[in-house]
Amino acid sequence: MAHKYVFFFGDGKAEGDGSDKGLLGGKGAGLAEMTNLGIPVPPGFTISTEACISYYTNNSQYPAGMWDQLLEALKKLEVATGKGFGRVENPLLVSVRSGARASMPGMMDTVLNLGLNDETVLGLAKKSGNERFAWDSYRRFISMFGDVVLDVAHHHFEAILRSMKSERNVQVDTDLTTADLKELVGRYEDLVKKETGAPFPQEPLEQLKYSINAVFGSWNNPRAKTYRRINKIPDDWGTAVNIQAMVFGNMGDTSGTGVAFTRNPSTGEKAFFGEYLINAQGEDVVAGIRTPEPIASLKDKMPEVYGQLEEVYLRLEAHYKDMQDIEFTVEQNVLYMLQTRTGKRTARSAIKIAHDMFNEGLIDKKTAVLRVTPEQVDQLLHPMIDPNVQYTALAKGLPASPGAAVGKIVFQSEHAEDWAGRGEKVILVRVETSPDDIGGMNVAQGILTATGGMTSHAAVVARGMGKCCVAGCGALQIDAAKKELRIGDTVLREGDFITINGTTGEVINGQVDLVEPELSSEFADILDWSDEYRRLGVRTNADTPHDSTVAREFGAEGIGLCRTEHMFFEGDRIDAVREMILAESPDARRRALAKIKPYQKEDFLGLFRAMDGLPVTIRLLDPPLHEFLPHTEQDIQKVANATGLSAAQLKRKAEELHEFNPMLGHRGCRLGISHPEVYEMQVEAIMEAACELKKEGLDVKPEIMIPLVGHVKELAELREMTVSVSDEIIARYGVEMQYLVGTMIELPRAAITADEIAREADFFSFGTNDLTQTTLGISRDDSGKFLPLYVEKKIFPEDPFVSIDEAGVGVLVQMGVDKGRQTRPDIKTGICGEHGGDPASVFFCHRIGLDYVSCSPYRIPIARLAAAHAALSE
Amino acid sequence: MAHKYVFFFGDGKAEGDGSDKGLLGGKGAGLAEMTNLGIPVPPGFTISTEACISYYTNNSQYPAGMWDQLLEALKKLEVATGKGFGRVENPLLVSVRSGARASMPGMMDTVLNLGLNDETVLGLAKKSGNERFAWDSYRRFISMFGDVVLDVAHHHFEAILRSMKSERNVQVDTDLTTADLKELVGRYEDLVKKETGAPFPQEPLEQLKYSINAVFGSWNNPRAKTYRRINKIPDDWGTAVNIQAMVFGNMGDTSGTGVAFTRNPSTGEKAFFGEYLINAQGEDVVAGIRTPEPIASLKDKMPEVYGQLEEVYLRLEAHYKDMQDIEFTVEQNVLYMLQTRTGKRTARSAIKIAHDMFNEGLIDKKTAVLRVTPEQVDQLLHPMIDPNVQYTALAKGLPASPGAAVGKIVFQSEHAEDWAGRGEKVILVRVETSPDDIGGMNVAQGILTATGGMTSHAAVVARGMGKCCVAGCGALQIDAAKKELRIGDTVLREGDFITINGTTGEVINGQVDLVEPELSSEFADILDWSDEYRRLGVRTNADTPHDSTVAREFGAEGIGLCRTEHMFFEGDRIDAVREMILAESPDARRRALAKIKPYQKEDFLGLFRAMDGLPVTIRLLDPPLHEFLPHTEQDIQKVANATGLSAAQLKRKAEELHEFNPMLGHRGCRLGISHPEVYEMQVEAIMEAACELKKEGLDVKPEIMIPLVGHVKELAELREMTVSVSDEIIARYGVEMQYLVGTMIELPRAAITADEIAREADFFSFGTNDLTQTTLGISRDDSGKFLPLYVEKKIFPEDPFVSIDEAGVGVLVQMGVDKGRQTRPDIKTGICGEHGGDPASVFFCHRIGLDYVSCSPYRIPIARLAAAHAALSE
Repeated sequence: MAHKYVFFFGDGKAEGDGSDKGLLGGKGAGLAEMTNLGIPVPPGFTISTEACISYYTNNSQYPAGMWDQLLEALKKLEVATGKGFGRVENPLLVSVRSGARASMPGMMDTVLNLGLNDETVLGLAKKSGNERFAWDSYRRFISMFGDVVLDVAHHHFEAILRSMKSERNVQVDTDLTTADLKELVGRYEDLVKKETGAPFPQEPLEQLKYSINAVFGSWNNPRAKTYRRINKIPDDWGTAVNIQAMVFGNMGDTSGTGVAFTRNPSTGEKAFFGEYLINAQGEDVVAGIRTPEPIASLKDKMPEVYGQLEEVYLRLEAHYKDMQDIEFTVEQNVLYMLQTRTGKRTARSAIKIAHDMFNEGLIDKKTAVLRVTPEQVDQLLHPMIDPNVQYTALAKGLPASPGAAVGKIVFQSEHAEDWAGRGEKVILVRVETSPDDIGGMNVAQGILTATGGMTSHAAVVARGMGKCCVAGCGALQIDAAKKELRIGDTVLREGDFITINGTTGEVINGQVDLVEPELSSEFADILDWSDEYRRLGVRTNADTPHDSTVAREFGAEGIGLCRTEHMFFEGDRIDAVREMILAESPDARRRALAKIKPYQKEDFLGLFRAMDGLPVTIRLLDPPLHEFLPHTEQDIQKVANATGLSAAQLKRKAEELHEFNPMLGHRGCRLGISHPEVYEMQVEAIMEAACELKKEGLDVKPEIMIPLVGHVKELAELREMTVSVSDEIIARYGVEMQYLVGTMIELPRAAITADEIAREADFFSFGTNDLTQTTLGISRDDSGKFLPLYVEKKIFPEDPFVSIDEAGVGVLVQMGVDKGRQTRPDIKTGICGEHGGDPASVFFCHRIGLDYVSCSPYRIPIARLAAAHAALSE
Repeated sequence: MAHKYVFFFGDGKAEGDGSDKGLLGGKGAGLAEMTNLGIPVPPGFTISTEACISYYTNNSQYPAGMWDQLLEALKKLEVATGKGFGRVENPLLVSVRSGARASMPGMMDTVLNLGLNDETVLGLAKKSGNERFAWDSYRRFISMFGDVVLDVAHHHFEAILRSMKSERNVQVDTDLTTADLKELVGRYEDLVKKETGAPFPQEPLEQLKYSINAVFGSWNNPRAKTYRRINKIPDDWGTAVNIQAMVFGNMGDTSGTGVAFTRNPSTGEKAFFGEYLINAQGEDVVAGIRTPEPIASLKDKMPEVYGQLEEVYLRLEAHYKDMQDIEFTVEQNVLYMLQTRTGKRTARSAIKIAHDMFNEGLIDKKTAVLRVTPEQVDQLLHPMIDPNVQYTALAKGLPASPGAAVGKIVFQSEHAEDWAGRGEKVILVRVETSPDDIGGMNVAQGILTATGGMTSHAAVVARGMGKCCVAGCGALQIDAAKKELRIGDTVLREGDFITINGTTGEVINGQVDLVEPELSSEFADILDWSDEYRRLGVRTNADTPHDSTVAREFGAEGIGLCRTEHMFFEGDRIDAVREMILAESPDARRRALAKIKPYQKEDFLGLFRAMDGLPVTIRLLDPPLHEFLPHTEQDIQKVANATGLSAAQLKRKAEELHEFNPMLGHRGCRLGISHPEVYEMQVEAIMEAACELKKEGLDVKPEIMIPLVGHVKELAELREMTVSVSDEIIARYGVEMQYLVGTMIELPRAAITADEIAREADFFSFGTNDLTQTTLGISRDDSGKFLPLYVEKKIFPEDPFVSIDEAGVGVLVQMGVDKGRQTRPDIKTGICGEHGGDPASVFFCHRIGLDYVSCSPYRIPIARLAAAHAALSE
């Protein structure tokens, strides 16, 4: 018997169920599950993802048996509906929809009303007793099939429809008469013939075959590929195809169609949330062409239908134990469910829903923690408009995705990518977005559209990206050709600044100050629950008392990386730093260092206070000295005046210190070896600050970290200095003080010889930024010229500076940990590169058994949650 | 019983023998061996190196028992000589000499005539019946002890001696009368009292103890440390101390002292070679203060002594089966041997001696190969004066160390180091060199001295360094203070160019062209013998037919690295290269590449012809494109004129291409991925050239190498392109052509994932230059600011760019080989960094089982020999 590729559902039972997402796709599995539950679903069948994969790998041939199985299923469908496919009297119409394992909203193709032709349209009119509906369906079918299958661009159809409406002097499609629609069909058929050289295909089985091929093909269209790349969906999953008897929302005012969420996908509020359109088909809602009604109003308009819908959605949520995203159609007062799936939601909503469902007893605590993804949490840490700022909104649209954003106006996706590539922050402004805009949306700070609702493409995608979006801002008049927009009297041009608030829907002229958000108490709970499960410690990278305090509020358990050089740039101290660099003798250098030391000590006092009771890892000076010298003529002159040196002398010193590859130059512990007095000063400042606070009764835990060690002898020499200076100071203050001396592991040689280095190190902190640069031989600063291409070509699955390259850098980290523990079983290990706040990298750190990750303050919640997920998914 | 620290020798038998170098040092072991052989050696005893090491580790305390053993040995010595230590009548005088396991000529301290004081000098005069001799010995002792033990600078004694000679109006020391010498002693004693605040020590045992301490201490003087660093002698070997009854070469015209080699240490000629001074002590010869007589003349002056000496030297050479470096003293017509050791020799001499001794049946072939060290061979590959150049020598000195050198005159060692540090080539010009000059000699191209013979310090050290040296050039008048020298009427100043020819002794004004030397037939034999033993293949790094031909003559078995970018700079083609870089579209780029292709093809035709029958590995373009753009204003203008672009456009392009860390930037296969048309052109040029020659009947073996691969997918993509382009061309020409496609392993990630990369690679070539830069995180171009300090501090035992860092980089190379072979057991592996010509690195490559090393043409003989040594020392 041939392998099974086609799975029927209808009449209360289905071949398959909700667990078959891999085989049937999300939509197919949902339809099967709902059918089994006895929920009203139009019957149909699903062609499996295996068929799709076989089609691709087999030179666009269907696998053996598939077509026969399809014909058989079609027969069953005719029986179930009592209609005939291609039969003039009572014709069976079907929808053909894609459905991948993971939801890819709007990325792939759909054909509705398939089975209509010049004959069956008459039969449909007769059978339904609704001629207008039949022709409306036919014109929809031709334009959709034309666009999706025959490659006749959608805008051609739109242009014909527009001119028809203008000829007839009507505003909306529903005002067109039956005669108008008949003429429209004629014009559409002429268009197809002109564009394709052949008449519109009349044979329903041929229509079906072409549509299936188009859906299979749409898996590999550019926008679907881009979406998969951004959302990390494997290319080899393929899509299923769902063929389902049509039910019609366009049969007049007792019909309609809608989409809804069982809870609010934006806020998480426990309330039915959605939109519908009367006398419309599904694509009208999603595409944002007409602005739909809020779901609540359906209660008044169709109380009975609403009652059924309520019952269904509550049942579905209880069944799936998660918020559902549903699609329904009402055909002459009868409700049909077309889809149910786990609803996409904002981070805020995910947290609230997980929190509520735990409290409702629907899910347990582990599940609640796992319901909030670390990637999502990032959204919550996006900026909001400073509540203390007064501003006047130019206009207000729909609050489609929360958060606020400031950027320069750009009207086209490609331009947005160009501008962002140059480091500009942009807001993408479109009449409406389409899946083609995915690249531009990805790089924009936020998205603003003139039309479309809360479930329009722009809104759904922006929420998925955790990006601020204001949709359906009707006041917006966009002239993309002139690169300008008007809101009332205000004219803004490409490059002008604009601020949008996705939480309120406001659009504001110019730049408004943003602030970081507070954590909600629900979020705090979820994070506290996470802490019950995670094994990894979470520290922060922070250089100031302010950052340290913020981080501590976010749950940081210490500082994993304090970069002392950041302190060198501040205020007046840069003068002393430059004096130190320009010093011609060790003595002169010491004099300059003596001026810097009080500043450094002050910094450390602040840090230690903020982190009372927690460990504070301080890295000694890391960058090459030339980074501190002035670069512009103006700055050089300023420093010359301040130091009494000539500009020429300054330039000479800068030339002397110039490096071809500063990343691989005279920096890190190499400075400590060649200029020991600099590190000595830093150790003195650290230990004096620590001892003073210890005397005050604070619990200070300094950990001194030597950067860029490649050879154990470097560390041995600097450790000896550190211990000798520290012990002298501790003795002088007469306090008890525990401190650690450790090193960064950020060079391949350090990882390779970690067993030797561990002899001199109390801890290892993996500096995966530099370790990635050296292991891959890629300068992060210069990688913009080729790394995006590499990610696009999937040479690297992910930017290795964002997510740790496990097969390369990861092997060295693992080696460093293993070798370090060989020598010193209790050595503390952590990571302090920016990977520390990347969920995938946190998983990796958990897996290889690091003690902690350290990341920027605003990524601490992400790291806490990711660490819990890592532990729970073991 | 206490551990034995003191070893006696005398009366035909010794406690120890020639195999005890580790314990007795080279000198002590030689004295013991000669004593056992019945050769006349003044009796004495050796304090072992163990005592020295114990002295260091034990806070400058002698080990238990040492002093008692010394007193006992001293008694035996009194019995053996019939003299008494400190006894006024017939006093025993001794020499105290250092003697480490390896010879360190002149690096450590010696005291002669110890045992003299104001009393014993009178006894010595009386006993010897030679008052002048006694006082000459005493004045020598005071100045030597004063300098070595009491730290009274030698030049103070010199100044007193000089003014005495000037007062007495005599030229040489030997013209001073007994009365003069007595007065000199008085003045020396006054000097010592003035400088040290105490009278000259009169107690012989005290003198002995101080001297032993001084010798122990001299192991750690700066020049000894420097010498050990340069010659890779471990710091923890320590030195032995040899205390030996004095015999006196300064007892008048029947006495004398000399040093000699059993064969010529410069040319290898089988002839007794050496020098002596009548009425002198040993240090007079070695220090180069008086110019000594050639050894042959001793035959006439002291025929009987010469006969004995001849017998002894022949016996020693036959005994040791190697050329010996001997020291002797004649005391009133009686010959005493003071030292025998394996003689240092030039590479030329080493080759000739090994070759001759094999032919004489003295040693076998393996031994002959092992007698020539790879390090030495480097000397032979040093430049010589172009024989076609006409020049007039300003003066002629002794041809002290062969080869020629051109450089700027520098008069002081520290200045030489400074200048060389700035990249200048210098010739160190000194009246005579002393061990303090070791640093300056090491960095100089060559050494020129005004006084001193063929065995003077300058000559011996220069030969050891394989550095050209002209010694004893009497015409030279040096005024170091004025930084100028005069030869006749010619005045040259610091910084002026000079050329010296160490093979002829000529000194030439200005810069003379140098050429590379031919290989002698003996050397060719040694290399051929080496080939019988080595397992490693030896290829060359060559970019031109000329280099390829030279390398092939030196024995290269193929090209391991041809850098195609070198071809990009030549002549007119740079214009086309720039046009290619400045092209605004792939089409324009292709047009420019079409101009470059004929040049490249011509290059490959030449290379393939030169390497007919041997493999040729060609690396595709490696450096970042900005390297080819003009940098100076003038060049920019030139290119602007040539290309029709404005200078501003050019600068903009240069800015666009600018990189912060070009070493880690957009280069290597990253260019191949982003600009595929460049690599395509190169592959076409290679394969078309190969196919054309194949048609002519040549045996062409192209190996195409992709640089800077970090991920297997990079290589997969470029291999596919290479194979597809190549196969198309091969089919077009209709030839049979085998070719390989492989990659450099030069990034840590490549080594770590070598198992994956091997799927796409026929061969791996380890690019250890870049692999060292990335593994250690050190930019070679910028390392000058700290790497010398690192080597000095022994953080790295050796510059890791010279000798491979086995513990770091070596681990990755090993990993790359092992993982590569896991996937592809027959994968070819080689090394093409500059380490390929470094003997220690060749040993490493042999050990880990690489198939070949590749190095610059002139290092091929070194690599062949090193590969044989590696195999033979297994």
